[in-house]
Amino acid sequence: MSTSSAGAKSLTIGLIPADGIGREVIPAARQVLEALASDVMPARLSFVDLDAGFEYFQKHGVALPEQTLAALKGDCDGALFGAVSSPSHKVAGYSSPIVGLRKKMDLYANVRPVISGAAATASGEKRAIDMLIIRENTECLYIKEEELHEGPDGKYAVAKRRISEFASRRAGEMAFSMALQRDRMRQQVAASERTWKARPKVTIVHKSNVLSVTDGLWRETVRGVYAGNAEYREGVDVEEQLVDSMVYRMFREPEAFDVVVAPNMYGDIISDGAAALVGSLGLVPSANVGDSFVVGEPVHGSAPDIAGKNIANPIAAIRSAAMLLERTGYASAALAIYRAVDKVLEAGQIRTPDLGGKSTTSDVTEAVCRLL
Amino acid sequence: MSTSSAGAKSLTIGLIPADGIGREVIPAARQVLEALASDVMPARLSFVDLDAGFEYFQKHGVALPEQTLAALKGDCDGALFGAVSSPSHKVAGYSSPIVGLRKKMDLYANVRPVISGAAATASGEKRAIDMLIIRENTECLYIKEEELHEGPDGKYAVAKRRISEFASRRAGEMAFSMALQRDRMRQQVAASERTWKARPKVTIVHKSNVLSVTDGLWRETVRGVYAGNAEYREGVDVEEQLVDSMVYRMFREPEAFDVVVAPNMYGDIISDGAAALVGSLGLVPSANVGDSFVVGEPVHGSAPDIAGKNIANPIAAIRSAAMLLERTGYASAALAIYRAVDKVLEAGQIRTPDLGGKSTTSDVTEAVCRLL
Ligand SMILES: CC(C)[C@H](C(=O)O)[C@@H](O)C(=O)O
Ligand SMILES: CC(C)[C@H](C(=O)O)[C@@H](O)C(=O)O
Repeated sequence: MSTSSAGAKSLTIGLIPADGIGREVIPAARQVLEALASDVMPARLSFVDLDAGFEYFQKHGVALPEQTLAALKGDCDGALFGAVSSPSHKVAGYSSPIVGLRKKMDLYANVRPVISGAAATASGEKRAIDMLIIRENTECLYIKEEELHEGPDGKYAVAKRRISEFASRRAGEMAFSMALQRDRMRQQVAASERTWKARPKVTIVHKSNVLSVTDGLWRETVRGVYAGNAEYREGVDVEEQLVDSMVYRMFREPEAFDVVVAPNMYGDIISDGAAALVGSLGLVPSANVGDSFVVGEPVHGSAPDIAGKNIANPIAAIRSAAMLLERTGYASAALAIYRAVDKVLEAGQIRTPDLGGKSTTSDVTEAVCRLL
Repeated sequence: MSTSSAGAKSLTIGLIPADGIGREVIPAARQVLEALASDVMPARLSFVDLDAGFEYFQKHGVALPEQTLAALKGDCDGALFGAVSSPSHKVAGYSSPIVGLRKKMDLYANVRPVISGAAATASGEKRAIDMLIIRENTECLYIKEEELHEGPDGKYAVAKRRISEFASRRAGEMAFSMALQRDRMRQQVAASERTWKARPKVTIVHKSNVLSVTDGLWRETVRGVYAGNAEYREGVDVEEQLVDSMVYRMFREPEAFDVVVAPNMYGDIISDGAAALVGSLGLVPSANVGDSFVVGEPVHGSAPDIAGKNIANPIAAIRSAAMLLERTGYASAALAIYRAVDKVLEAGQIRTPDLGGKSTTSDVTEAVCRLL
């Protein structure tokens, strides 16, 4: 949040559509942001178009250009990232720009709310799911330190998986503080409307029965965050779940989870899995959060099969834009967007094909704008 | 398969119940094996009781005793492993015995069939799932090479993830040859009864958009197995799936998968997830397969919360025993067991609590024995 020379607040958002449907859903999110009325959104919004992605790499030899990073750091208060295509075979010099962005901007937690609603019910899922996945966002196998060797039995490759006290602590803090914050927000809705009725709970995901050192450190550190904070101990329950059983339980009783905190790779897998529970990946937003910057990012990928057809579901990107507003201090504007999206989903008339409908990306975007 | 001095065939099976419900389901599997009629099971069966597990570790300081390994190698034609408890905190010197067993006996593939049937339908799942997960079983993060370091920001730990051409090739060979074998078996049932009607398909799971070197080697090697074999190319289709989307797609359209081949850790997660699709972890068997030995093992864990109550579902262990027979050359005996289990599930009267019933472990075991 910055203050312009005239004294009026302004918010500058970097837009990085990247590849495939990213180029459709990011403009959709922008359209919704621009449609916000000034009573809920008191700051003047401006946008900066920025490059990144696999297609950009193919043209320019770099997937995350320095200018993009410089603009984010110098000019922007936050950003929205679309989605990135994966090369179908190994490409020398290519490295995922979203992974780079998270690391270079120190966006250490990826916050992924997974909530069932009208859309989920329509696609057959009856249970009330209201889960918040906190994914550690800077290390684990994502440090990408890999080496290829030649051995007596042929080639072999080794990747390093790094887990640090520092990063685990930050992820843990985020999980417990979000658990309390969610609880405060719940107190504001009628008890009968709450999906989660118990004390807030954090589920720590790991696989320390195999990775006793790395996941052992993760689990002890996250537990340490809890043990060292009276507010957490008084207000939040804590449990652990091995990652394999986590995926099993998540599908058997998703309503049993409140906040879930996981190392990077497990978090990646779990959040895609959770998206299946609420009807479509096209609904699930995320925010890559650091201490001084936030990048909204739909959980879905670039979906090359449907790109360019104006049928991608823009809701994940629109909700990601709302998460960005929430985290930059514009909670009312965020709420207005969440509510408009919910109304569109509940009405059930205007849906993209992933939810069984026939509407276009533009139809859904315009419907959300109308209901703001 | 060994031949006794009198010339009659004999099959010696090591029984390693290990922890928790392992001590109930392994005896159940034995009971079923002993109830096999001699027309389907021409070999004389004998059993060797063997120790391993976390409880054994707590008493004797070792989780997988040398005597157990020696007996398996010296006296047994195959084995059944129950389940192992995970210590709730780091325990010096403890290392998972099942991981050790797989490595020391060179059981390089973990074969996990996930099939929907009567039980799945009863628990709300309508779709016909007939998936075979081949999990690489010797490397990836399971090599357990981990180190703890002290850095400027506190402790950090590093684990190594190893992917070799050698192990990837063996897993790939297993996947493609099983795909063809499944196809041959399908040809023997009426077309109307087949759940999989297309050409056999192998889905290669990886995350090479992040792990371009390790998962890059995995994917190229498995693809190489395919490219280098005319029979595979002619008979089998191949596709790839990033592990996160794999979990998503598996829940959205599980009927789209035939054989799935994955590195160790992804395979662990995916197979637990798949179990949720067919009603219960208590139904899903596996076989740890090497060139000269096989260990049947239910996919479920030791379930300390229900251990000792005679309510654990023995079906996963019973099916694992059938997989053991199948792989040691007793296909008819295996088939007899599979059919008896299916009949019990279809009748739907006798079910353990995980399937919504009130029957005991013994009830289910006896029902299977009666229907052999
Ligand atoms: C595109 C890929 C590198 C990325 C990840 O694995 O983090 C994506 O799956 C995500 O979840 O944002
Ligand atoms: C107990 C544990 C070490 C084991 C594994 O991760 O392989 C289990 O989850 C399994 O799937 O057999």
